[in-house]
Amino acid sequence: MTDEFDVIVIGAGPAGENAAARAVRGGLTAAIVEDRLAGGECSYWACIPSKALLRPVDLMAEVGRVPGLSLGPIEVSKVLARRDEAVSHFDDSGQVEWIDSVPIEFVRGRGRLDGVKRVRVTPRDGGAERVLTARHAVVLATGSTALVPPIPGLAEAKPWTSHEVTAAKAVPERLVVLGGGVVACEMAQAMHGLGARQTTVLIRGGSLLSKLEPFAGELLAESFSEAGIDVRAHTGVARVERPEPGGKVTVHLAEGPPLEADELLVATGRVPATADLGLGTVGLPGGRTVEVDDSMRATAVEGGWLYAVGDVNGRALLTHMGKYQARACGDVIAARAKGGDDTLPAMRDIADEYGAPQVVFTDPQICAVGRTEAAAREAGFPVRVVEYDLGKVSGAYLLGDGYRGRAKAVVDEERRVLLGVTFAGPGAAELLHAATIAVTAEVPLDRLWHAVPSFPTVSEIWLRLLEEYGL
Amino acid sequence: MTDEFDVIVIGAGPAGENAAARAVRGGLTAAIVEDRLAGGECSYWACIPSKALLRPVDLMAEVGRVPGLSLGPIEVSKVLARRDEAVSHFDDSGQVEWIDSVPIEFVRGRGRLDGVKRVRVTPRDGGAERVLTARHAVVLATGSTALVPPIPGLAEAKPWTSHEVTAAKAVPERLVVLGGGVVACEMAQAMHGLGARQTTVLIRGGSLLSKLEPFAGELLAESFSEAGIDVRAHTGVARVERPEPGGKVTVHLAEGPPLEADELLVATGRVPATADLGLGTVGLPGGRTVEVDDSMRATAVEGGWLYAVGDVNGRALLTHMGKYQARACGDVIAARAKGGDDTLPAMRDIADEYGAPQVVFTDPQICAVGRTEAAAREAGFPVRVVEYDLGKVSGAYLLGDGYRGRAKAVVDEERRVLLGVTFAGPGAAELLHAATIAVTAEVPLDRLWHAVPSFPTVSEIWLRLLEEYGL
Repeated sequence: MTDEFDVIVIGAGPAGENAAARAVRGGLTAAIVEDRLAGGECSYWACIPSKALLRPVDLMAEVGRVPGLSLGPIEVSKVLARRDEAVSHFDDSGQVEWIDSVPIEFVRGRGRLDGVKRVRVTPRDGGAERVLTARHAVVLATGSTALVPPIPGLAEAKPWTSHEVTAAKAVPERLVVLGGGVVACEMAQAMHGLGARQTTVLIRGGSLLSKLEPFAGELLAESFSEAGIDVRAHTGVARVERPEPGGKVTVHLAEGPPLEADELLVATGRVPATADLGLGTVGLPGGRTVEVDDSMRATAVEGGWLYAVGDVNGRALLTHMGKYQARACGDVIAARAKGGDDTLPAMRDIADEYGAPQVVFTDPQICAVGRTEAAAREAGFPVRVVEYDLGKVSGAYLLGDGYRGRAKAVVDEERRVLLGVTFAGPGAAELLHAATIAVTAEVPLDRLWHAVPSFPTVSEIWLRLLEEYGL
Repeated sequence: MTDEFDVIVIGAGPAGENAAARAVRGGLTAAIVEDRLAGGECSYWACIPSKALLRPVDLMAEVGRVPGLSLGPIEVSKVLARRDEAVSHFDDSGQVEWIDSVPIEFVRGRGRLDGVKRVRVTPRDGGAERVLTARHAVVLATGSTALVPPIPGLAEAKPWTSHEVTAAKAVPERLVVLGGGVVACEMAQAMHGLGARQTTVLIRGGSLLSKLEPFAGELLAESFSEAGIDVRAHTGVARVERPEPGGKVTVHLAEGPPLEADELLVATGRVPATADLGLGTVGLPGGRTVEVDDSMRATAVEGGWLYAVGDVNGRALLTHMGKYQARACGDVIAARAKGGDDTLPAMRDIADEYGAPQVVFTDPQICAVGRTEAAAREAGFPVRVVEYDLGKVSGAYLLGDGYRGRAKAVVDEERRVLLGVTFAGPGAAELLHAATIAVTAEVPLDRLWHAVPSFPTVSEIWLRLLEEYGL
């Protein structure tokens, strides 16, 4: 068993796996170090289980809009069972098999930097430490963890984070959610749909999904309100009490009467998982994101051997962007190791600069790519905005009664290309990729005009937006 | 009331309406002549009602794949009622109001060419004929009608065509469908899902949807077979008997025992609605498509005043393509009338040459744009094909158990652009527009690489296809 590899990746989430696999494809040897499950947060405690929980809830809403169909009561145990299947019952042996097959050396244990090109691995079971040496590169791909804000009593109450809510074995009757971002919204929707009758979302600011176009959060708030999810804006939490572990929680607000709940979900942000990563041994501060250039190389480390992909570099906290960065990273490491051309287009992250695509799987589904109007204006683009009521598109009307949605396109008037697109509406998720192509490839509006949306799909929104623009 | 207009359009379907409206936007006056309902086939007897019938059937299939959900029996009367609402109860007053508002002069009656730039209108109620004169252009937009093949007894049996099946007031218990194209497949699916327990599809050739990539028809045939729809390939019909009007039908096959059914749907193709359009008065043969150039101008008529958009020109029998052609047509007529630049990109139909996008709303949904592999090879392109199992995409797995689908991309190896893309899978319809943009805008594969599909959407298929390609 060798302890020297061309590349060592710390973190076997989707980003780390991709970085290692691409490096191997490029002719290098690689090891990947992981102290939890191979497959990472996304596979077990984020994207996959959350969507497994949301799918039936989403479908219930869709059925409710179609006359002639009616649903029996949802069987939550079956939904949870399928979620368990989706996360492989928290067994990563299939994933490890895939890693072995690449081949990548899978090293189970906690990985920490230990000076230049060195990674110290501490097994969880207390076995002997092992020091791995990288000939060419070390890639950090440890992701992020939930931020628990310093509210008195909150940490002691051991609240749910994304980790626990997606792995829930039962649905609490009364749930309080702190936060208004993607995790908060998706999990409020899922838990409420699966039986959390009293679901309260507390947000410090004025709106849900505040990083997206304002109409998205507004539509979602309306939908939540109609569904009976209680959204309270501008609401601070003073302190939290939970006398019995796992028991009833009391959330004391800055103003007004306290809230009682059976569970509390904290979804107020993420912090990069760099606090205990040995960054100090290479002169970097711990607990912060690792700044990288477009080839994913850490800018503050000499010698160019350290890379960081995924949440840990803070570019975009999204699985697909982490994987995208990782593909570039693995390719560029191989090219540099072999003395090849390391400037090929696929070896750079250019997509994050355009604005990463993202889908929120609520009802309505919300998706966006590129810049919001506000961001585009702030960046100094000559902006024109076009909006259209998604419910007025025939394809949307045909999906069900009372379809409500909206689309907004942000146009660079000088170059006549799209800077950003946001869709909100039931089933809107798959509309996004067309926008992602249009924005990222900078397809001119005059060319988009000839990309005729098929009738009667919801994609006809593209025609409507271009017509609104004046084409 | 004037009888002279800058533009006269015959046929108030979506194509005709768009041609007239764009001409008016360009500063011209326009009249539109229609003897049936303003809004056309699409609104009352095709796209709209068919999708209203298919939506609940589609959703039932989706629910069936999601553990934890169960459906009560479908209430067909409610489905038919919503279909009736979708077709505005066959009342076109709303549509006529819109036409008035453009403003376009709406002339109810049968329109026929009556020599150069003249249209004779015969009211249905036997009122006085009216002759309209066009200063600049006449646009033919009369669409197409169902082809009823010359099978003995077939016409006499007064079978359903797309017209009657989409307007059905009840669902026959036993249905025989002649044909294997889009209408046949969609309506077999809809009627079977709504209660036609014994649904038999008879096709002369070997496969369903034979104009698309072969795997599409194969997947659909599998799905039909599992659902209990009886598809019989290579099956000729010798004659049809229906002694009582509207009564039991007997379909005698070329071989084997006859089939008995309560209704017979003929969906074996379309013919352009040009037989009784006065084409002879301007030297054109009736009953055929009217050949046009890329500005929609009839190539065989002197003086360049006659145009044809939509089904009638035979380019693509699809509402959205007819409307697209019509927008170009209205714009170019206005430009030519005003002596403006008539060569702007939006004034030409370039999309049909790439290969029109199309969605088949069956289960699985099937959609395609551009060229099939066979068509691309025949056209002499240096072709490479990439395929991927859609069910292996995480986003598809999360939609339900047993998701089955497939994607195929046809690549021009020289230019490294997509020539065609086909998707088949539940809920695949909205995947298409991304492909339509990629194909029509000829976005290079190396650029598509940076258009990162959001995880976990089904659109991740884009990443998988590009990885399969070797990026």
